[in-house]
Amino acid sequence: MREPITALRREMKRRGIFAYLVTTEDFHGSEYVGEHFKSREYLSGFTGSAGRLVVTENEAALWTDGRYFIQAEAELAGSGITLMKQGEQGVPSVEKFLAEKLPNSSVLGFDGRCVNALFARKIQAALAGKNIALETELDLVGEIRNDRPPLSKKPVFVLPDEVCGLSRGEKLAKLREEMREQGAKVLALSALDDIAWTLNLRGGDVDYNPVFLAFMLIFEDTAELFAESTVIDDEIKLTLENDGVKLQPYGEIYNALNALSEAVWIDTRTANFTLRNSLKSAKVIAKPSPAEMLKACKTPAEISAEKAAHIKDGAAVTRFIKWMKSAVKREEVTEISAAEKLEEFRRQDTDYLGQSFEPIMAFGEHGAIVHYSATSETNAVIEPRGLLLSDTGGHYLLGTTDITRTIVLSELSDEEKRAYTLALAAHLELLGAVFPKGARGSTLDAIARKPLWDNGLDFNHGTGHGVGFLLNVHEGPQRISYRAANDAPLCEGMITSNEPGLYFEGKFGVRHESLVLCEKAEFEGFLRFSPLTCVPFDLDGIDKRYLTEPQTARLNAYHKWVYETLSPMLSEEERGWLAEVTKPI
Amino acid sequence: MREPITALRREMKRRGIFAYLVTTEDFHGSEYVGEHFKSREYLSGFTGSAGRLVVTENEAALWTDGRYFIQAEAELAGSGITLMKQGEQGVPSVEKFLAEKLPNSSVLGFDGRCVNALFARKIQAALAGKNIALETELDLVGEIRNDRPPLSKKPVFVLPDEVCGLSRGEKLAKLREEMREQGAKVLALSALDDIAWTLNLRGGDVDYNPVFLAFMLIFEDTAELFAESTVIDDEIKLTLENDGVKLQPYGEIYNALNALSEAVWIDTRTANFTLRNSLKSAKVIAKPSPAEMLKACKTPAEISAEKAAHIKDGAAVTRFIKWMKSAVKREEVTEISAAEKLEEFRRQDTDYLGQSFEPIMAFGEHGAIVHYSATSETNAVIEPRGLLLSDTGGHYLLGTTDITRTIVLSELSDEEKRAYTLALAAHLELLGAVFPKGARGSTLDAIARKPLWDNGLDFNHGTGHGVGFLLNVHEGPQRISYRAANDAPLCEGMITSNEPGLYFEGKFGVRHESLVLCEKAEFEGFLRFSPLTCVPFDLDGIDKRYLTEPQTARLNAYHKWVYETLSPMLSEEERGWLAEVTKPI
Repeated sequence: MREPITALRREMKRRGIFAYLVTTEDFHGSEYVGEHFKSREYLSGFTGSAGRLVVTENEAALWTDGRYFIQAEAELAGSGITLMKQGEQGVPSVEKFLAEKLPNSSVLGFDGRCVNALFARKIQAALAGKNIALETELDLVGEIRNDRPPLSKKPVFVLPDEVCGLSRGEKLAKLREEMREQGAKVLALSALDDIAWTLNLRGGDVDYNPVFLAFMLIFEDTAELFAESTVIDDEIKLTLENDGVKLQPYGEIYNALNALSEAVWIDTRTANFTLRNSLKSAKVIAKPSPAEMLKACKTPAEISAEKAAHIKDGAAVTRFIKWMKSAVKREEVTEISAAEKLEEFRRQDTDYLGQSFEPIMAFGEHGAIVHYSATSETNAVIEPRGLLLSDTGGHYLLGTTDITRTIVLSELSDEEKRAYTLALAAHLELLGAVFPKGARGSTLDAIARKPLWDNGLDFNHGTGHGVGFLLNVHEGPQRISYRAANDAPLCEGMITSNEPGLYFEGKFGVRHESLVLCEKAEFEGFLRFSPLTCVPFDLDGIDKRYLTEPQTARLNAYHKWVYETLSPMLSEEERGWLAEVTKPI
Repeated sequence: MREPITALRREMKRRGIFAYLVTTEDFHGSEYVGEHFKSREYLSGFTGSAGRLVVTENEAALWTDGRYFIQAEAELAGSGITLMKQGEQGVPSVEKFLAEKLPNSSVLGFDGRCVNALFARKIQAALAGKNIALETELDLVGEIRNDRPPLSKKPVFVLPDEVCGLSRGEKLAKLREEMREQGAKVLALSALDDIAWTLNLRGGDVDYNPVFLAFMLIFEDTAELFAESTVIDDEIKLTLENDGVKLQPYGEIYNALNALSEAVWIDTRTANFTLRNSLKSAKVIAKPSPAEMLKACKTPAEISAEKAAHIKDGAAVTRFIKWMKSAVKREEVTEISAAEKLEEFRRQDTDYLGQSFEPIMAFGEHGAIVHYSATSETNAVIEPRGLLLSDTGGHYLLGTTDITRTIVLSELSDEEKRAYTLALAAHLELLGAVFPKGARGSTLDAIARKPLWDNGLDFNHGTGHGVGFLLNVHEGPQRISYRAANDAPLCEGMITSNEPGLYFEGKFGVRHESLVLCEKAEFEGFLRFSPLTCVPFDLDGIDKRYLTEPQTARLNAYHKWVYETLSPMLSEEERGWLAEVTKPI
């Protein structure tokens, strides 16, 4: 058994705890978390981005989803930890497992700050009738891990009002309007991007997400920001005070909630268990945070900033493609060095801040692993054959990008060309979709997938996700996935990815991703998309037999726009190359 | 003020009731209800199929939805009843209205058997804190209406096991299996079609729906059917007893539920308030009825019976179209006489039982009224110009049909042809859709509507609804509507309508409806539709410029199948005509 688990069991025994649950969450339900929070990884050795670990006196089990079965099996080998493949037949859920294993009148422990409130309630429901005591104020990993990184305390910086389009005061006013409509006296924000958006502030406490660790309470006239005092400089503090926002110590949020007795609006989808339970005397309004929809619909200022960011990013990625297609024939390039090269192109822009997620640079069969990320063990040399799937993104002072192009490295097989072209047909169908206001992404997905479904093909991930403005690259409330239930309608100003793909395990993968802006269509009451991402698709992958005429016309129009938009930024030689790779087919 | 309302107020006053609520529901939450239950119509004079009436000491208001605004305005004119247009800005909901109007500590009355349990709870929530007493065992309409039709007591008849594919015993076993999975000791059924389906019995207590008034309790080994003893003959009683089903008086269901203390599964979406509240000591499992999904997925026997029913129906409707297109030029035909003529063709089949819903025979501008049904006041003479929208259906011993064809009565305008053809394109797109298992109708709807959306057009009703097997023509859990949330995935064996349309108020309407069967596609893990309805579309309405090549090919293939399937049943003259109207375009 792994040493950290043995140490954990020692602590559990000392405190009379039969089972201890460790999740992948920080205090804010973030998708990515800072190093301090990687307890599940520390205990189990499993490095995937999703998973839950349960350790009992004599068993240890880890739950993760289909994306990570292969990786988890490898990483858990020999650890003594049982892999629980979520969703597979006969595999119990965490709560069912706990209900089965915990003896009557025993104790279950977890750090309530790192467990989602709704999930904890599910566990409580499953344990009902067994007289199980919950110990939820226990950070046992903190006790046993000597080298644990402290909470991140990166400095906070300001986004100018001109870039955001709405000042902090205007955003607070909009949130208070929503509060009045719901009869809420207090709005409790715990999602980090909600807080960053509201305050026009950004930070660096979470990898890839420019947010800072904080909670926020918004009252009718004032507000309180619970954050580490040292991360916010005096100038920012002053502007916050001017906007009626008072700084409080980060950890004080729990006491502050405890003291509230009025109607408090809290988004229980993201709130942690301790946070939710701190609302002891308040009337709780459990609804999606109003900041979610407001920040999803970008302001005209944000939209024009994003357009500028995407042109900069487009030039960088286009240069990378040009380089890659020739470099592969003359020098050794690996998946990791290719990703570095691409970032080098991006870094040439002074507005560039960093990557918006862990880059996926996947050669050949690695392209079939949807969430592939090269490690020193897997890092493949990119050879002049087949396909290179490149899914990367950047944060700029003017916005966030996320783009996938699948680069053709040689003459392709018919199978590769068919997959490449059908996935492109799906991308082009969604790009050209016209739809009434009120339509949701779970509906539009059929328009994207139809060229694949007609051929008995499909892919096992969403076709699109919302993207934040210099914020999280995955953002709600909209998404484009036929498997989604209760997804939000698409609205004017939303930025969403359009990324259908096709994957053939052990062989290759194809994905075509642009970010698109939702805007008014030419018909009253209808919406459509326009592309933000400005990078050519590799014509070498196309078999025209798999494109309809309207699809071909749409591709040609896109390429014309790419050429016209990028060419002023390019050298003559680059421009000549771009003209060639964007020519009409 | 209308006399019945004055009489109602007299009764209310006598009993100290401030406000009385009257709905459109029977005791079973049925879509159509028997004459006995038409209290809202009796009191208000409004005849639409949806609406709620609230009468207070000094006010009366009726809520209905967009389909009925025009009709309700006309029917309520001069009645002193205020029309509340549901969903329009500034119009309060019933519960908000009640919360506003009811003085503190006053009394609200309604017949709890005719009010949906979930809706009543919404009202209770809205009234919280006002100390309002509910009087829910009051049938005041019963007190004041002397000519009230009694509860219907039509005889029940048996559907043979060979036609149903599953015997009553097999169905009970399947339901008990679901009960075990949910930990339910008792399953309470209150939806009439659930009960008819379970028992392989049909009745005639509700217009258009071959069901009988009953409740049912299914225990682990036995079952109880609560129904009027006189409607079930001795032979059927004996077979019920043999299957462990004991007959109980209809009204005894409430006492029976009251006496239960174990885990009872009840579908609160359809249960009435009194029913739900009779479960005083039981542990309530509030989930959709397991009969819903089981009856939606037709058995192979039901499918082959439905196919036969649709061929009979197809021949009748095809004969009607042939007759109509020529009769309009030589004799006076009205909307009502045309509907009668169509039923005459249907009645020629000995298996025909009756209409499956109120026929919609809508000439010219009437076609733009989605739920139009001709009355003696509106009945139009059908002239040899424009379009006739004919949406009708029949019950046969072998199944239920529902078909819309839009018949061309003269040379059409470009506008009419464009609408006719685009709506047909939508129909053909859905007919040809291929989709993975798990896809829902709210997703597939985009495939149907794309030809319309691309032109900035849409229609304001669902594209499809489930259809029962010699049961309700509207049946869940699947539907095809992008506005639906949480709709069920399409499954093999489901029968659903495919009925896109286009409507131009004051001008004309177009709708093309066939029933389609969901079945395995040629690709593993994929499903598709095949047509059940076997009637040609009117080629005179088509402008080929609005059809894609695959759409045209699909239409031609459908027409080839229609010709091959129907021609053996037709006379030589009819066959010659059919060959002409189904020729490839």
